[in-house]
Amino acid sequence: MDTTGTCLHQMRATAPLVHNITNFVAMNIMANVLLAAGASPAMVHARDEVAEFAHLAQALSVNIGTPDPDWAQAMAMAAGVMAETGKPWVLDPVGVGATRFRQEICARLLDLGPGVIRGNASEILALAGIGAKGRGADAADPVEAAETAARDLARRTGGVVAVSGPVDYITDGTSAYQVANGHALMPRVTALGCSLNGVIAAFLVGQPPLPATVAALAYYGLAGERAAQAAAGPGSFQVAFLDALHALTPSDLDAGARVSRA
Amino acid sequence: MDTTGTCLHQMRATAPLVHNITNFVAMNIMANVLLAAGASPAMVHARDEVAEFAHLAQALSVNIGTPDPDWAQAMAMAAGVMAETGKPWVLDPVGVGATRFRQEICARLLDLGPGVIRGNASEILALAGIGAKGRGADAADPVEAAETAARDLARRTGGVVAVSGPVDYITDGTSAYQVANGHALMPRVTALGCSLNGVIAAFLVGQPPLPATVAALAYYGLAGERAAQAAAGPGSFQVAFLDALHALTPSDLDAGARVSRA
Amino acid sequence: MDTTGTCLHQMRATAPLVHNITNFVAMNIMANVLLAAGASPAMVHARDEVAEFAHLAQALSVNIGTPDPDWAQAMAMAAGVMAETGKPWVLDPVGVGATRFRQEICARLLDLGPGVIRGNASEILALAGIGAKGRGADAADPVEAAETAARDLARRTGGVVAVSGPVDYITDGTSAYQVANGHALMPRVTALGCSLNGVIAAFLVGQPPLPATVAALAYYGLAGERAAQAAAGPGSFQVAFLDALHALTPSDLDAGARVSRA
Repeated sequence: MDTTGTCLHQMRATAPLVHNITNFVAMNIMANVLLAAGASPAMVHARDEVAEFAHLAQALSVNIGTPDPDWAQAMAMAAGVMAETGKPWVLDPVGVGATRFRQEICARLLDLGPGVIRGNASEILALAGIGAKGRGADAADPVEAAETAARDLARRTGGVVAVSGPVDYITDGTSAYQVANGHALMPRVTALGCSLNGVIAAFLVGQPPLPATVAALAYYGLAGERAAQAAAGPGSFQVAFLDALHALTPSDLDAGARVSRA
Repeated sequence: MDTTGTCLHQMRATAPLVHNITNFVAMNIMANVLLAAGASPAMVHARDEVAEFAHLAQALSVNIGTPDPDWAQAMAMAAGVMAETGKPWVLDPVGVGATRFRQEICARLLDLGPGVIRGNASEILALAGIGAKGRGADAADPVEAAETAARDLARRTGGVVAVSGPVDYITDGTSAYQVANGHALMPRVTALGCSLNGVIAAFLVGQPPLPATVAALAYYGLAGERAAQAAAGPGSFQVAFLDALHALTPSDLDAGARVSRA
Repeated sequence: MDTTGTCLHQMRATAPLVHNITNFVAMNIMANVLLAAGASPAMVHARDEVAEFAHLAQALSVNIGTPDPDWAQAMAMAAGVMAETGKPWVLDPVGVGATRFRQEICARLLDLGPGVIRGNASEILALAGIGAKGRGADAADPVEAAETAARDLARRTGGVVAVSGPVDYITDGTSAYQVANGHALMPRVTALGCSLNGVIAAFLVGQPPLPATVAALAYYGLAGERAAQAAAGPGSFQVAFLDALHALTPSDLDAGARVSRA
């Protein structure tokens, strides 16, 4: 498997155009995260242009955080283009356990073969059809509780599934990795999880999904660790986090990544 | 009346799930403010799920800052759930004086019994049916000019009405308090007023409305005072404000709150 | 021509109410930029109120960054009010080269006489009907390549056209200026270009379009230069940029503006 640093280098060399259909809370920070990391973000959701734009993009991230019916249709249209043209796309099933509407949207999206699904343990459990305790975007379940669900979901979709938490769990249904990078302030800043899915989408362009996802999570978590050193609270943490995403080099990542086989 | 510090302690111990239907400008900062304060925010607006989600939430804040007809309907649906189930909800009548559309939305929402209404003097005057000079979200009227309107509105709705300004005025129609905390840079950062309403909603869970609202305003204003000490302008102020919301303790609040009976 | 400092002074003395119909990514930072600069922003897009609000505003900025059909109609309604009442409005043709939907929206808006159009070289080329290479909001063409297109477009609309880049080019179809202020970190923060159009709209109130636009660009670029001195990356740059917009004085601007006739 390529090193995490090699994956970061490759992503920046590609500077991929990432199409995002995301929630209103994440819009701005997600674009800033992708710019800081070295990718080129675009937010496009109207049914009148979403398929045309998906043809231009190199990867797609879909986030159901603040859905409505028009947006849900646009998500399926864009993901459909990715499925047809063999380009990678990532699903973030935000709060899928909370309402039937979100479950219906995700059921439809799962049929379009997301290359990567990333969520917290409650979301992955809910998505795999196992009753979960999630309320909103919080995780009420520990990562370990979702490992079996993640493997099942990965086998069913043919993609990678990542469960975020203090130690992340990433599997393609056969192999699995753990990433121990990260910091406790990260969930105290809104939409950093959402924004991570855009970074995963960027890493997927031209790279094999499992190591690319592992590298994206290690990179993101390491930037969080760096940011925490300079932060006095969640406000200064967010600022330092964007600076760290921009400053981290491939060799920093190789030195700081805490990846192990699970 | 409980001390302001006790109210803050209680809010953090509850870490309430606050459902927000807010404007596009406020979405991100409002979520970050609630996370920094210690609550759990969720932004949900689609008619397809808004009532179902309102049943999960412990409090609701409704903000008409960037309304459209679908969102207005969702606001009424969510507030209706709160009214039925006896859970608290807060109204932010942003720019209600500016257009007939906003006045119609607010008329409908007032019938659903907001536990707290908070706005600037122009908004409270407009809401109470008295001609105001407001344009957009700015206040063209001093707080004192809205005190009678606030008392009348509180008696009419059976809730608390808070008028924001250099010295805030809070009344339940019988008693009234003033809160002198705050800083002149606060109105130079967009959506801090909007975000305050989410914090009020969080404080209302399991606490009596009048002291909870007073405590929320004192806490928010005191965080602004702390932030100003570290700020070189509105950019660094916003960062320091989130840090201060996170760092302030109940005993800091008891020591720094500047609350008096009006 | 008035000095850039005089234009800044005049804008702040007016503190104009600027009506913005902008994209979801830009909403918050655009409001914060306008507040930091000294203007009074409002974001209003619903067809139910957009014309009524446009009558209250002193200037309008329209940005097609995340369009949908309802918003496109609201843009035309608001711009129509400005055209009728002789108030200035600014067009930001974000990513107009990317989809037919954006081209149709812009064709309709061009007929309503934008006082200023500002975009990157790819956007101005696409808007002028010349095939461009733009993808999303990035510029794939150098500023020089769009100078002829900018002059043609200015003559056709009777307004000012500004092409953003390392050195900006601003023309009314007859005269032209270059502004060399700015910093390489500016395009690494999302929506700073979008937000600039709101600042241009604020400068236009009561001031002649060509010098007002030149002054707005010099002011914005100089704030970027100041911010870069205090920044460790794109996160801290954004914070310092808002502080600099707030702190820069008219005499700072006169001393630091790098404007020349083209």
